[in-house]
Amino acid sequence: MSFNTFGRVFRFTTWGESHGPAIGAVVDGCPPGLPLSEADIQPFLDKRKPGTSKFTTQRREPDEVRILSGVFEGRTTGTPISLMIENTDQRSKDYSEVAKAYRPGHADYAYDAKYGFRDYRGGGRSSARETASRVAAGAVARLVIPDVDIFAYVSEIGGDAIDHARFDASEIDNNPFFCPDPEAAKRWEKLVDEARLDGSSLGAVVECVAAGVPAGWGAPLYAKLDSELAAAMMSINAVKGVEIGDGFAAARLRGEQNADPMRPGEDGPQFLANHAGGIAGGISTGQPIKMRVAFKPTSSILIPVETVTREGVASDLVTRGRHDPCVGIRGVPVVEAMMALVLADQKLLDRAQCGER
Amino acid sequence: MSFNTFGRVFRFTTWGESHGPAIGAVVDGCPPGLPLSEADIQPFLDKRKPGTSKFTTQRREPDEVRILSGVFEGRTTGTPISLMIENTDQRSKDYSEVAKAYRPGHADYAYDAKYGFRDYRGGGRSSARETASRVAAGAVARLVIPDVDIFAYVSEIGGDAIDHARFDASEIDNNPFFCPDPEAAKRWEKLVDEARLDGSSLGAVVECVAAGVPAGWGAPLYAKLDSELAAAMMSINAVKGVEIGDGFAAARLRGEQNADPMRPGEDGPQFLANHAGGIAGGISTGQPIKMRVAFKPTSSILIPVETVTREGVASDLVTRGRHDPCVGIRGVPVVEAMMALVLADQKLLDRAQCGER
Amino acid sequence: MSFNTFGRVFRFTTWGESHGPAIGAVVDGCPPGLPLSEADIQPFLDKRKPGTSKFTTQRREPDEVRILSGVFEGRTTGTPISLMIENTDQRSKDYSEVAKAYRPGHADYAYDAKYGFRDYRGGGRSSARETASRVAAGAVARLVIPDVDIFAYVSEIGGDAIDHARFDASEIDNNPFFCPDPEAAKRWEKLVDEARLDGSSLGAVVECVAAGVPAGWGAPLYAKLDSELAAAMMSINAVKGVEIGDGFAAARLRGEQNADPMRPGEDGPQFLANHAGGIAGGISTGQPIKMRVAFKPTSSILIPVETVTREGVASDLVTRGRHDPCVGIRGVPVVEAMMALVLADQKLLDRAQCGER
Amino acid sequence: MSFNTFGRVFRFTTWGESHGPAIGAVVDGCPPGLPLSEADIQPFLDKRKPGTSKFTTQRREPDEVRILSGVFEGRTTGTPISLMIENTDQRSKDYSEVAKAYRPGHADYAYDAKYGFRDYRGGGRSSARETASRVAAGAVARLVIPDVDIFAYVSEIGGDAIDHARFDASEIDNNPFFCPDPEAAKRWEKLVDEARLDGSSLGAVVECVAAGVPAGWGAPLYAKLDSELAAAMMSINAVKGVEIGDGFAAARLRGEQNADPMRPGEDGPQFLANHAGGIAGGISTGQPIKMRVAFKPTSSILIPVETVTREGVASDLVTRGRHDPCVGIRGVPVVEAMMALVLADQKLLDRAQCGER
Repeated sequence: MSFNTFGRVFRFTTWGESHGPAIGAVVDGCPPGLPLSEADIQPFLDKRKPGTSKFTTQRREPDEVRILSGVFEGRTTGTPISLMIENTDQRSKDYSEVAKAYRPGHADYAYDAKYGFRDYRGGGRSSARETASRVAAGAVARLVIPDVDIFAYVSEIGGDAIDHARFDASEIDNNPFFCPDPEAAKRWEKLVDEARLDGSSLGAVVECVAAGVPAGWGAPLYAKLDSELAAAMMSINAVKGVEIGDGFAAARLRGEQNADPMRPGEDGPQFLANHAGGIAGGISTGQPIKMRVAFKPTSSILIPVETVTREGVASDLVTRGRHDPCVGIRGVPVVEAMMALVLADQKLLDRAQCGER
Repeated sequence: MSFNTFGRVFRFTTWGESHGPAIGAVVDGCPPGLPLSEADIQPFLDKRKPGTSKFTTQRREPDEVRILSGVFEGRTTGTPISLMIENTDQRSKDYSEVAKAYRPGHADYAYDAKYGFRDYRGGGRSSARETASRVAAGAVARLVIPDVDIFAYVSEIGGDAIDHARFDASEIDNNPFFCPDPEAAKRWEKLVDEARLDGSSLGAVVECVAAGVPAGWGAPLYAKLDSELAAAMMSINAVKGVEIGDGFAAARLRGEQNADPMRPGEDGPQFLANHAGGIAGGISTGQPIKMRVAFKPTSSILIPVETVTREGVASDLVTRGRHDPCVGIRGVPVVEAMMALVLADQKLLDRAQCGER
Repeated sequence: MSFNTFGRVFRFTTWGESHGPAIGAVVDGCPPGLPLSEADIQPFLDKRKPGTSKFTTQRREPDEVRILSGVFEGRTTGTPISLMIENTDQRSKDYSEVAKAYRPGHADYAYDAKYGFRDYRGGGRSSARETASRVAAGAVARLVIPDVDIFAYVSEIGGDAIDHARFDASEIDNNPFFCPDPEAAKRWEKLVDEARLDGSSLGAVVECVAAGVPAGWGAPLYAKLDSELAAAMMSINAVKGVEIGDGFAAARLRGEQNADPMRPGEDGPQFLANHAGGIAGGISTGQPIKMRVAFKPTSSILIPVETVTREGVASDLVTRGRHDPCVGIRGVPVVEAMMALVLADQKLLDRAQCGER
Repeated sequence: MSFNTFGRVFRFTTWGESHGPAIGAVVDGCPPGLPLSEADIQPFLDKRKPGTSKFTTQRREPDEVRILSGVFEGRTTGTPISLMIENTDQRSKDYSEVAKAYRPGHADYAYDAKYGFRDYRGGGRSSARETASRVAAGAVARLVIPDVDIFAYVSEIGGDAIDHARFDASEIDNNPFFCPDPEAAKRWEKLVDEARLDGSSLGAVVECVAAGVPAGWGAPLYAKLDSELAAAMMSINAVKGVEIGDGFAAARLRGEQNADPMRPGEDGPQFLANHAGGIAGGISTGQPIKMRVAFKPTSSILIPVETVTREGVASDLVTRGRHDPCVGIRGVPVVEAMMALVLADQKLLDRAQCGER
């Protein structure tokens, strides 16, 4: 209910439901003097936009962002930046069945249990549509950390992983899956299409890298950089797992294997490995930040699943409407946005903590 | 630097270094009228206490907690509860080498990079010793959620996992590994002992279950229950990965496999599976909360690793001192404490959000 | 720059500048199930609306509020409520002179000093126009505390105070000054008109009463109810002083004079006085909350005042544009809104702290 | 209950009751590398210490502070600084009567109403004894703002004010009242002694000045510098009113009288007046910050006042025990501490918001 705000000094608040008139974000704490216009934000929204291929939801919306405050003569003023995106393609009629019964695995039942009722149109507030607001806010965050290079990609769909040996960053935008391995991209085309035609859905893993973060960002103990990032990613729809660096694989190593040896370098120590994913003791080490994020398959599927109605009657539910067969794909720009939002906040916090670097 | 406080309305702040005179926690927001004495806290500290077997650090401390405020005539008053644990077995002389060079994989370098220097004695603030404060605070949190049953256990050490088919909760306290599978416990004895004799260390996975959480706790979107739990667990020393429910395994499923079907039950819907780990849309569903937490192997090992000194000279570092060969083991009571602390906070928040359940 | 959010569990964030396309508020943490439509908010905005008499700014705007999210089928859903008010009567051309020189006593210089530049059109973010967003948010807050009766009035303008012996609540809405003393209202007509014709401005004192607050709201020590209220009122434009109960007058009393004696009553103790203004030890006592708020005269006047330009050249500034001759008058609905916002938050917090009353 | 923490990035948490074993503070967010030892804190505690003259409580305690964490080799490490002061002179037997009946005007009834019971010994958590923790924390805060000169003094007791024309800062520490006007100090001796002998108490006004604050600190709108300061001061025991600059007197001025004219100066604009008390639009202007704080007379008096017992029976209460005849006097170092704590926080926040000045 509460707490639709994220961040400590660079903060954003999102609002809006899938089928209301609009959604939006208020970005508070952005430093003054940064050049900002809608054109800085729109490309990121376009990347996330639905309806760009048959592998994403067929809802079609331009997702045009408007800046309503916080910018004067083309520069941020240090006051709140209000961003708004109108909802233009809602078809509420599709959701009549969902109003009555709970989609198994969906937020439906939990929302009803908490609030006593829910806006069932397209999932209301629990819809992945809200992530457009994050992507818009994330575009502003990137302006705060111009030296940090953030990119994410899909590394696994439905259990079929890319071969990291074939990793090619330039391939990521060449296919509808944000896939850096062209062979995997080819296989996924068939895989996702099959799931789509079956009326089913697939899970995915998204990996994200942030290069150019200096050593020293993060604040032990309960605002460790890993904690902030894990919280950020876990707040994304459908995410159920988060790893920093080697993550669960590190739990299978011995100490000497997992150590990231150092040797003297020109600008401080050089690391010979990065098992830690660029964070030690909750503070960035100067190595690239590396994360992995697990997306479950969306629960809105055409295959009937046993459920109950709001009145407690047994029912078999089929979720009509237009849904993503693999919600992890469009999760890529959202993961990038959350990474940018956390790092912008950490940069400003670090200044408060330790002064300019 | 900042932000040694966790929680929103039930909050705790910890303080103290490995080799200072004491460590402690201030618990703020505990409801009034709950019976509380040191005897309610001590058993949890004893569970975490070092030196209880050869599989944990040989530092020996009674870890006796004192309540300094917030309790009157045996009951909490609603004012801050100050808990203090004296440090009694510090051997600072062991750390002379660490003062000069950075332990690869440890917080040493990151702390120096951020703060310009560090308390190198036993890791200072980055030491796992701080987790005793959390365990003490967690014992208070449990009083707020008497109907919730929380338990954790080690499910994997060094890549050797338990067989969940042999899971026996009553075995957890029968071995020095908090292992619910007696056969795995036997294997681990050899495994951990070997690592210890090699001067190495092992990673581990801890699983945690909280049963009895009613449907409705959690607050979308940026304080989703999953987010709060992920942040809590990621703030524990050596943790690099977190999963809710099936976590990364869910990313390999199809929608109909990952759905948690429901059928009518006596007290609301009954779930036929729990892939979601008891949380949907960031809100508890009434099913048991299930998490998995990955602990990396500790970086304080006797096997030399390439590193650099503070002056930037190449060096091979061996970390003497008394360390845990598998820090995940003693992580069990810490994971339980963090679970209790998050859930106590969520229970109180839910009251603010939606009134009494 | 940051921190345009107020509240702890019932929180609102405002955004927007005097001369941007719109202003607005996002209310987060509102309990679910409350009936809410624009019609519940509009009357409060109408009360604050400019241009209703010659004693307020001649800017004319309908100040129509739109609810963009958080309401479904006429009831709050527990998700963020986005409120927007379009700016329709901006005349930016009036502000050319202000762009160059600093209005003495205004935020101009401080904003420039902090941010390096500012949106000078109508004061930008520092304009009292922002308070319309608070009034809208306050109308939502009132729904959370239906049993609390809040009203404010002007008790003093330019040093001319009402006679409390003639206090008549029913008079408050009968004159353009929100004045409960009809004789004072008559005097003020002349007083304010003179100031207006002189191109000057007048300070004022607003008093606010909240009846029906039960004993027990508030949270010692740093979120005492008095602290929260003082912070809330001091955040209003032009406010420079705040008193709870007798305030500064209490500093001139002896202990036995300032005590609020009690005698047994039917529903708990009855108080024989209310010097404390309904708050003791930071917690409400069940008596009416009473506050006094001092508004300085606005610094936007037609009488020339010595100042400097941004380039550091001496100048005599006259502030053209349309301004309130006594900004305290329109402060009345704003003070009421802030009172409602704090009390709604405290009611929900108290539930978290101590359960339902 | 909750919220015993103050501050945003430089934060402190206090704990402890009047008659528990100890009281203390945890300071979080202090920058690393600042020289700090007990000797930096003790002088401020000595200034606040009870029992130094007959005009303060006769409780006698050394109030010796211990630093338990956050300092290594004489410098702050950037980790939490735990400060503890033992309670050594508690006489709980004095409070038997208070346990049964409510002191009119005291927090007794409100605490009972909220929490269901209370630690009645010496007021428990509501005792002014807690302010020793703030004074200790404030001493740390001063290290963060070495260029800011903070001093407070009593300007009025029981309605008898100093003559500002006779203001002499060097006199402040020459009398037991922190009075800058030697003639007023003489009069107060008689005034306070009479009240003391009558078993009564007196209110007071404390004024505080902070010189050396650069232009630019503060964060509109809901964390305006005035708001933060008002909240800080209102959280002090017995405070019922707060003014910034001219405060309520400004409400009696016209715009041209209240303006602070500027003329060109060597280092930016020079102000010809300071009605605003150094803050405009919520941001510091570079002029001295000026505040006035009203302390009510303490409600713990020997003169019987009508009250009720916890059981609801009418009673006449006399508060035995050792109390301050004028609690505002010892409020001076507390007001200074809160000023330092707010300004340290604002300095660090401003860095986050706008970078180094």
